[in-house]
Amino acid sequence: MYVIGVDLGGTNFAVGLVDESGKIIARSQGKTKVDDGPQVVAKRLAEAVNEVRKGAEVSAVGIGSPGSIDHNKGVVRFSPNFPGWHDFPLAEEVKKYTNLEIYVENDANAYALGEHTFGVGRGCDHLVCLTLGTGIGGGVITHGVLLRGSTGIGAELGHMNVLPNGPKCGCGSNGCLEALASATAMKKFVLDGYPRHMNSSLFEQKKPDQITPKDIFEHAKMGDHFALSIFDRVVNAIAVAVGSLVNIFNPQLIILGGGIASAGEFLLNPIVERSRDYVLPTMLGTYQLKLSELGKDAGILGAASIVVERMRKM
Amino acid sequence: MYVIGVDLGGTNFAVGLVDESGKIIARSQGKTKVDDGPQVVAKRLAEAVNEVRKGAEVSAVGIGSPGSIDHNKGVVRFSPNFPGWHDFPLAEEVKKYTNLEIYVENDANAYALGEHTFGVGRGCDHLVCLTLGTGIGGGVITHGVLLRGSTGIGAELGHMNVLPNGPKCGCGSNGCLEALASATAMKKFVLDGYPRHMNSSLFEQKKPDQITPKDIFEHAKMGDHFALSIFDRVVNAIAVAVGSLVNIFNPQLIILGGGIASAGEFLLNPIVERSRDYVLPTMLGTYQLKLSELGKDAGILGAASIVVERMRKM
Repeated sequence: MYVIGVDLGGTNFAVGLVDESGKIIARSQGKTKVDDGPQVVAKRLAEAVNEVRKGAEVSAVGIGSPGSIDHNKGVVRFSPNFPGWHDFPLAEEVKKYTNLEIYVENDANAYALGEHTFGVGRGCDHLVCLTLGTGIGGGVITHGVLLRGSTGIGAELGHMNVLPNGPKCGCGSNGCLEALASATAMKKFVLDGYPRHMNSSLFEQKKPDQITPKDIFEHAKMGDHFALSIFDRVVNAIAVAVGSLVNIFNPQLIILGGGIASAGEFLLNPIVERSRDYVLPTMLGTYQLKLSELGKDAGILGAASIVVERMRKM
Repeated sequence: MYVIGVDLGGTNFAVGLVDESGKIIARSQGKTKVDDGPQVVAKRLAEAVNEVRKGAEVSAVGIGSPGSIDHNKGVVRFSPNFPGWHDFPLAEEVKKYTNLEIYVENDANAYALGEHTFGVGRGCDHLVCLTLGTGIGGGVITHGVLLRGSTGIGAELGHMNVLPNGPKCGCGSNGCLEALASATAMKKFVLDGYPRHMNSSLFEQKKPDQITPKDIFEHAKMGDHFALSIFDRVVNAIAVAVGSLVNIFNPQLIILGGGIASAGEFLLNPIVERSRDYVLPTMLGTYQLKLSELGKDAGILGAASIVVERMRKM
């Protein structure tokens, strides 16, 4: 028996046929083209689902979507990534063309389920995931249950406040984790700092607006002071958040994923160390911090695990 | 059928016979006298239990205790309030003298259960409680389940970081909510600020070390600038924590209890207003902030509700 995972993003989507061990047997991908409208996008996803299923016995399809999701009804209530989608019955529409059971879940929640089912979080009933990318998403499993909250929009860990009066966040607040440690925040620190740090090695090969988080980590590794100062802000912000999350959830595991986490141990190790300053002494030794190992397939595997989790409950 | 609630504190304890509606039918109280050792304290609690039960049909006893509790075994693993108690089988010891089923739970968790069973949180499956007193405790119910965490010491909401590099906390960290908004923190602000604010109306009748949170609230109400500046720090710290808690838990309700919350709407209203600055726009309208209405009986009713919740699960 197989399941299909659909990783739906604002720009691209990816679909995979996944076996019980989390191996992706067949794949398809494409451009979301949000402007075509939700019906057309849903049909596009359905076609990709039909392409990867070819002859395989598929139990159901899981879709990880950004935004506020009614997971019971499979409805995308709204999403900043999908302007114009309001209460769109995504599950129903994709089912029309596939005749498969379709489950929809917020993508950050799907990510946590993916870690729980196929990733470093296997066997952990208490885990917290942070996805560090363009924005910062969160997913929490506590006592084996996905934390959705009362209206299904919980676990917005990127909007924990880690520095009151800190930098402006896209959400309108100041000092959210996302405003300090996302790729967007890092790029902004580069642009804001450029006039004062023109002699940074960051700008030897690239213009300020071309600098990526990867560049910042590389130049920080080489000892560039401006890159190190940005790295330091990122590490501190994540360490504060991790400290609070440990004190709140008493988890076994905190998993760092997303593009920025691909910086690996260079990023992980100082976070492990500095977060100890914000953790209750009684919590020390009760948790581990790990990097996701799902890599680029995290989206598909997270979406596939929506189905696995639903079946577990039946 | 009745249950008995035991509110065990570091200095005093209180015991109540509670009916199904949360009415306290009979009471007893006494000094804990921790120095007598855990066996003697357990016997003292048992005697008070036997005193209040007189002839009533009692289903079980709930004990709310500070510290790290193994709620499955009824063991107090350790508690800063009970030096020398290590892995003490409190339930077993109290049972010896009462022959009643005894359940033990962390007191802040019991508080959350009390609000859920008898208080303003009735019917809410997603609620967050902050108990603002000498320290700051927390209790969370999410998806109807008490958040205990992987080793049973979760929901330490007083140690969320709300101001990195802020005042030193008793836990050794800096800028925890408890270091900014507890009675202890408020008293410290008074002592630290005294040399610069000797003309504050706070010091007209009392010496600096006699000032209580109640005094601070009263003088803030009257417009004293020093009292207002302390009040402001308290409100801001709680507002930051509330904002993060809403974004994390997407709760229906956040309940403020404990001695400091008895300042009432004078404290509640500015927290309601300022926390909006830290809450995601999509969360606005999904939650309410309320003051506890359990008052001085919160401890007994919380402890009694431990039993009610256990019976619900059977």
